[in-house]
Amino acid sequence: MPHTSYQQLEKLFNRIYQLQHLTSIGHWDMATMMPAGGSSARGEALAEVSVMMNELISDNSTGDLIHSAQQAETELSDWQQANLREMKRLWLDATSISSELVKAKALAGSDCEHAWRTLRAENNWQDFQPLLENVINLTIEESQQRAEASSLSPYDALLNLYEPGQNSAAIDLIFSQLTDFLPPFIQQVVEKQASDMVIQPMGFFPVDAQRELGLTLMRHVGFNFEQGRLDVSHHPFCGGVAEDVRITTRYSDEDFGESLMGVLHETGHAKYEQGLPHDWLSQPVGAARGMGIHESQSLFQEMQIARSKPFLNFAAPIIETLLANKQMDKQCWSADNLYQLNNRVKPDFIRVNADEVTYPMHVILRYEIEKLLINQKLQVKDLPEIWDVKMQQYLGISTAGNYKDGCMQDIHWTDGSLGYFPTYTLGAMNAAQLYHAADKAILDLSQHISNGNFAALNQWQKEKIWSQGSFYSIDDLMIHATGEKLNTHYYIDHLKKRFLL
Amino acid sequence: MPHTSYQQLEKLFNRIYQLQHLTSIGHWDMATMMPAGGSSARGEALAEVSVMMNELISDNSTGDLIHSAQQAETELSDWQQANLREMKRLWLDATSISSELVKAKALAGSDCEHAWRTLRAENNWQDFQPLLENVINLTIEESQQRAEASSLSPYDALLNLYEPGQNSAAIDLIFSQLTDFLPPFIQQVVEKQASDMVIQPMGFFPVDAQRELGLTLMRHVGFNFEQGRLDVSHHPFCGGVAEDVRITTRYSDEDFGESLMGVLHETGHAKYEQGLPHDWLSQPVGAARGMGIHESQSLFQEMQIARSKPFLNFAAPIIETLLANKQMDKQCWSADNLYQLNNRVKPDFIRVNADEVTYPMHVILRYEIEKLLINQKLQVKDLPEIWDVKMQQYLGISTAGNYKDGCMQDIHWTDGSLGYFPTYTLGAMNAAQLYHAADKAILDLSQHISNGNFAALNQWQKEKIWSQGSFYSIDDLMIHATGEKLNTHYYIDHLKKRFLL
Repeated sequence: MPHTSYQQLEKLFNRIYQLQHLTSIGHWDMATMMPAGGSSARGEALAEVSVMMNELISDNSTGDLIHSAQQAETELSDWQQANLREMKRLWLDATSISSELVKAKALAGSDCEHAWRTLRAENNWQDFQPLLENVINLTIEESQQRAEASSLSPYDALLNLYEPGQNSAAIDLIFSQLTDFLPPFIQQVVEKQASDMVIQPMGFFPVDAQRELGLTLMRHVGFNFEQGRLDVSHHPFCGGVAEDVRITTRYSDEDFGESLMGVLHETGHAKYEQGLPHDWLSQPVGAARGMGIHESQSLFQEMQIARSKPFLNFAAPIIETLLANKQMDKQCWSADNLYQLNNRVKPDFIRVNADEVTYPMHVILRYEIEKLLINQKLQVKDLPEIWDVKMQQYLGISTAGNYKDGCMQDIHWTDGSLGYFPTYTLGAMNAAQLYHAADKAILDLSQHISNGNFAALNQWQKEKIWSQGSFYSIDDLMIHATGEKLNTHYYIDHLKKRFLL
Repeated sequence: MPHTSYQQLEKLFNRIYQLQHLTSIGHWDMATMMPAGGSSARGEALAEVSVMMNELISDNSTGDLIHSAQQAETELSDWQQANLREMKRLWLDATSISSELVKAKALAGSDCEHAWRTLRAENNWQDFQPLLENVINLTIEESQQRAEASSLSPYDALLNLYEPGQNSAAIDLIFSQLTDFLPPFIQQVVEKQASDMVIQPMGFFPVDAQRELGLTLMRHVGFNFEQGRLDVSHHPFCGGVAEDVRITTRYSDEDFGESLMGVLHETGHAKYEQGLPHDWLSQPVGAARGMGIHESQSLFQEMQIARSKPFLNFAAPIIETLLANKQMDKQCWSADNLYQLNNRVKPDFIRVNADEVTYPMHVILRYEIEKLLINQKLQVKDLPEIWDVKMQQYLGISTAGNYKDGCMQDIHWTDGSLGYFPTYTLGAMNAAQLYHAADKAILDLSQHISNGNFAALNQWQKEKIWSQGSFYSIDDLMIHATGEKLNTHYYIDHLKKRFLL
């Protein structure tokens, strides 16, 4: 039986972890296996257990236990101290907004998302606007309640849910460097690529062969199939639990690249989960260090490795063996051609389909707008206009009157998850900096990759990132891994090398 | 918000139901999808949530709420009153043994089952005996604690966990009629069948074709695929939740009959779950009425329907279309031949492989022995001897020295689930009585079945059994459905008609 306050907290968080385990498997099953008629019962089960987890962490006794454990903190090991710090953060996150607001937001988000499914197809902004206003107003209220509890600014209080310790002043600085650099760079790349000869493999790619390709490359890059699976879902994700990671993809008969790069992206997330510190998995300090670092691991796998020339040198013959048929031009399977195919740049409307170079501009547009919304410097009714202005400024295309490919293009804001967007681009930048550090640390890294040998690289990532869980702050983790905090120039250098050399 | 004690109880049991939902899906996933390396984390999650459910129901406040709801019982509807009665039963089940004993039994059961996996293969009774003794001793202690709390006899207190309201005096009477009837009857049937010409379809039956056959017949007999699935697991079962029922099978390349009849058996369980009263699913009164009635629904589907001549008249051409190849004798696919194949009788060692006629003798043997064990009239060390004596008496075969096909043949006792065995044969008998009543109620029932038309029969079962949940006691449910309590003669008549006519 646990005696100290700290031990009682470990027991409490272990219980929450076990509920999360079943919740995660329930979510995965819902997306991959569940027949349609099971959905409302599953929704109720997940909602009720989510309430239970919130009750457990918000119980009055939790704050007392944290306070009392802090009094005796010197008796704890450094990992226990870090665990206590993470417990306190989660407890504050759970208790700093009212349960009425949580309920109201969940309801408004569900209404908004449900309506979005039909209204987007109709390009119907008029009916969507009041629903989104409702969500945004409740999110503003949430940001203010959280700001009060944390002494952060309202936007930073939301941001900290996904990226603990990060703040918008630092992000403003980082993103301003990208806003200076990227728009002219995009022009340059587009012009350069205009004369490239790229052969698009045309044809029918059977799902079984695509699945085999995904599984083969997952195995090569070190996904542990003893503790994970690959399945199909409408929206690809990485779920399950660290001990049993479930990633998903979807297949298009005509385009194998979407699933292939998607699988490798999710594999990056999965390897992080599989490499988390085994002894601490059931505790907050054993979890991944925020969304920006998580995304850095998926983008490390996808952008730094899978879309690179060395990797495609290795993968091209495997891809050809599994997918080629006689109707196709054999040239399309060369590593050079696959490299060009996987790195085409084209400014377009939809973020989730964007290439590596234009993607950050989509993110920065969203970040700037969501900050204005939370700070009440922009009204929801003016969203389409500012969207159009920024799209023209950043990517040279207009969304005037085109709501469905503009501010109605995805569901990211419908549930009020503002503060999440910057983590995508922070992830991309962390990934470039981490690759640079790995390349310095591992002799002939690109040769290893060309040979399909990922052992040293995985070992480096495991030691520097995965096995650290949430022991360090985000900044300290980057210092631990690379010797310095996030520094924009690694990312800019990476883009220049990949797209202009 | 709930105000009355009864409403608070509904809220509590709804919470438990939602935890059970995720637990069920977690169990299903473990048996069908989970990679091997996920097993210890899953085990921990399921164990912790099981403790939580037990804490919720055993909380001191639950007894008070039940007491206070009973004071105001006249204000409740008849279904609410039945629900309160079931709540009280579950609360008594959960609180009448000490949590130390629960833990000790779980540990002893897990040790015993784990050792069984190797010791059975080695025919090693000597090392198995002390482990089983440990389990049986703890189960005796459990039976005594439960007896004290319920004023039932120790064995009946265990029996009531699976078959509420049932008692061993009644079962003794019922089983004694079978023990008189069956052994000579088995001899007769074996002699009669000795001259039957049965053609065993020989060959390789691809899993895909067997799966298609299972799915096709499931669809015909009324499994709702909008709220359920068929998958593969090592041990077939019916799991999931009433809103999303997951059944499983396993395939043998050489014997399609095992999976086919297994699938239809589990489909019988599944249709019961899918037909439970929709408005009461999250409450105890909405659950199935005990294991004997549950087994009656699977055996209704398997024994009363699927192995009958009318059903095989309907199914034979479907089976032939999906499974036949040119190497096989076309005669083997006739309904007559399939009927004979599916009703061969042969006394043998292993219960789970037994035919319809010898199966009850396996069950009665287990029932008689487990009663002796619980009443401390038999020691575990004497188990092999009494097993051999009874096998000779009931089935004319000896297990002397053959522990692995005798008392070590399955894991039913390793976790101390004594009291469960009689429900198998009670289920078979209930099924025969229910079929007799359905046949009286539905004009030309066997013609409907020959035509593959199950609508009227499903409607009858839904009205009489499925939609009643746990509203009635077991006896009252049988009276509601058939006009009388369980009566042995329907079962004996069924066996005579099927095996001697």
